[in-house]
Amino acid sequence: MTRPRNDNFLRALLKEPTDHTPLWLMRQAGRYLPEYCETRKRAGSFLQLCKNPAMACEVTLQPLSRYDLDAAILFSDILTVPDAMGLGLYFTEGEGPKFERPLREEWAIRDLTAPDPYDHLRYVMDGVSEIRRALDNSVPLIGFSGSPYTLACYMVEGGSSSDYRRVKTMIYDRPDLMHRILSVTADSVTAYLNAQIESGAQAVMIFDSWGGGLSAAAYQEFSLQYMQRIVAGLIKEKDGERIPSIVFTKGGGLWLESIADIGCDALGLDWTIDIGEARRRVGHKVALQGNLDPNVLFASPDKIAAEAKKVLDSYGPGDTGHVFNLGHGISQFTPPDHVTTLVNTVHEYSKILRKKDK
Amino acid sequence: MTRPRNDNFLRALLKEPTDHTPLWLMRQAGRYLPEYCETRKRAGSFLQLCKNPAMACEVTLQPLSRYDLDAAILFSDILTVPDAMGLGLYFTEGEGPKFERPLREEWAIRDLTAPDPYDHLRYVMDGVSEIRRALDNSVPLIGFSGSPYTLACYMVEGGSSSDYRRVKTMIYDRPDLMHRILSVTADSVTAYLNAQIESGAQAVMIFDSWGGGLSAAAYQEFSLQYMQRIVAGLIKEKDGERIPSIVFTKGGGLWLESIADIGCDALGLDWTIDIGEARRRVGHKVALQGNLDPNVLFASPDKIAAEAKKVLDSYGPGDTGHVFNLGHGISQFTPPDHVTTLVNTVHEYSKILRKKDK
Repeated sequence: MTRPRNDNFLRALLKEPTDHTPLWLMRQAGRYLPEYCETRKRAGSFLQLCKNPAMACEVTLQPLSRYDLDAAILFSDILTVPDAMGLGLYFTEGEGPKFERPLREEWAIRDLTAPDPYDHLRYVMDGVSEIRRALDNSVPLIGFSGSPYTLACYMVEGGSSSDYRRVKTMIYDRPDLMHRILSVTADSVTAYLNAQIESGAQAVMIFDSWGGGLSAAAYQEFSLQYMQRIVAGLIKEKDGERIPSIVFTKGGGLWLESIADIGCDALGLDWTIDIGEARRRVGHKVALQGNLDPNVLFASPDKIAAEAKKVLDSYGPGDTGHVFNLGHGISQFTPPDHVTTLVNTVHEYSKILRKKDK
Repeated sequence: MTRPRNDNFLRALLKEPTDHTPLWLMRQAGRYLPEYCETRKRAGSFLQLCKNPAMACEVTLQPLSRYDLDAAILFSDILTVPDAMGLGLYFTEGEGPKFERPLREEWAIRDLTAPDPYDHLRYVMDGVSEIRRALDNSVPLIGFSGSPYTLACYMVEGGSSSDYRRVKTMIYDRPDLMHRILSVTADSVTAYLNAQIESGAQAVMIFDSWGGGLSAAAYQEFSLQYMQRIVAGLIKEKDGERIPSIVFTKGGGLWLESIADIGCDALGLDWTIDIGEARRRVGHKVALQGNLDPNVLFASPDKIAAEAKKVLDSYGPGDTGHVFNLGHGISQFTPPDHVTTLVNTVHEYSKILRKKDK
């Protein structure tokens, strides 16, 4: 296997020199793009779009034809794994994801088993292979999964929640049951990410969307511990190339040191932490990915450029270790041409900074 | 003025020795109490309850008759100030607060003026006086306000928001307009809190519920700067007694050092930070208030006791500088008898720790 023609994304994660600061955007294939909305309409529903490899491939590539992005990310939903466990994922308009059979009973938790990713999640692997073929080695493809704790939040609550009351009650009252859920889920996620790697993913990212809502002690025990187990079980190299892993806990800025210790190659950062401070704290151990507030993209182009430059300036000198991204998924209300400004600014300004360094 | 008979709360904030670790609970007068629901029903609506000093006094005292709490907090809404500015506060069942006239137009922002707290917010001051009389010097009364940034979020968005898109767009696109809103609001809050102090509040707290959603740089410029201005303008002493101030930015754990620098007496902590770590970082400058996850109160009494003890153990030795609280408002679904367990555990266990220290 040879590296993609534009391998700046992989180089940054592996701390090899880069020509410019690579960037991609969380949720870059999404509702802010009219072409995405058109495909989704054709698919019939969000879930049908996720489960159709050809259409998932189509939307994965859409942002790459519009913008000069340095990586593609598999288009999928974070709840495919619990769906494959038999919880019955469905979506209701305007209410987000729900499960027909949330995990509440002890017998159901005891019965939970890890799904075979090549069986129940075959459509994801087919999507990965198809996207790789379509990318034709232009840029790397990122595979991903939700973290065990984040998946458990949805599995126990049965959908989104404003307070995570049910999952927290289980953590404090029946930690044994929560550990059982997290353990099976961690095994499932490890197998799922490894199957994505075997199918062609060239880097993987774990999204811990809700770990930041835990106490410091509970985060270590119920979220980080299981991400560590996953990272330890990941395929580290394929066809002679290292497969880097990125761990992103939204709201995890207080715990960067312990996240950097679990063996991953990079940390995702939300926008609440100064990236220069994050680099001083953990930059000797891991690469960093982030971290512009997605809401900056609602400002005028000159303001977007100024804020993007601030992130690059704050990261500071050096030609590697930084993948530019937003601090959270791009909003569905983002004007598509504002993304052009962001992409061009990051590429151009980071090249200027590299010249200054020399 | 003499101090209340139980002045442990004030002593802890001022770093004077205490008999036990004092505690009160954010939103302690609220929907989890059946007697509160009864009074609210009688009042007709939440807003009518807030605007009726006799009823506001009644619900303020309700948790104190049930539990051995060390402080009372004025029952009111954080949006009284923008309501007094003429934005037209109203509540719709299940949807939270809304404004009839959100601040969106430049002319409206230019026209914004600080309300006279003794005129448009007379009902709050009447409530404070009435509560003080009813407390009869048993425990101290805390006054409070929302922070300028948090109030601005509601004022610009027109209600709650999942992404604060409008307020962030203004921050990045028209910082001049946002600064104008924040400046008028900071003046309003200063006058409002000073009027509460003149009317009898013995400590004040600023709730910055949404500052934690800002980037590190934007937090300094758009939230902290204005809280600093308020703290600088507060009445520091009344009748020979210091009036302590508490500043609480939910999600502000990364910024404790800079918050501790604005001249307040104490920091409120949410549950995501270990209180022992917070003490090591800023305990030499300020007292700390917090920080049990409110969801712990859904666990069984023995688990509640164990988690409360962990917070006290983590704070560590010494007989002052800590006010026990939740890391956020108590949930409306909390079983009232679980609060009894919490209050008794904190009092008893903190007395045991004080004996051990000696």
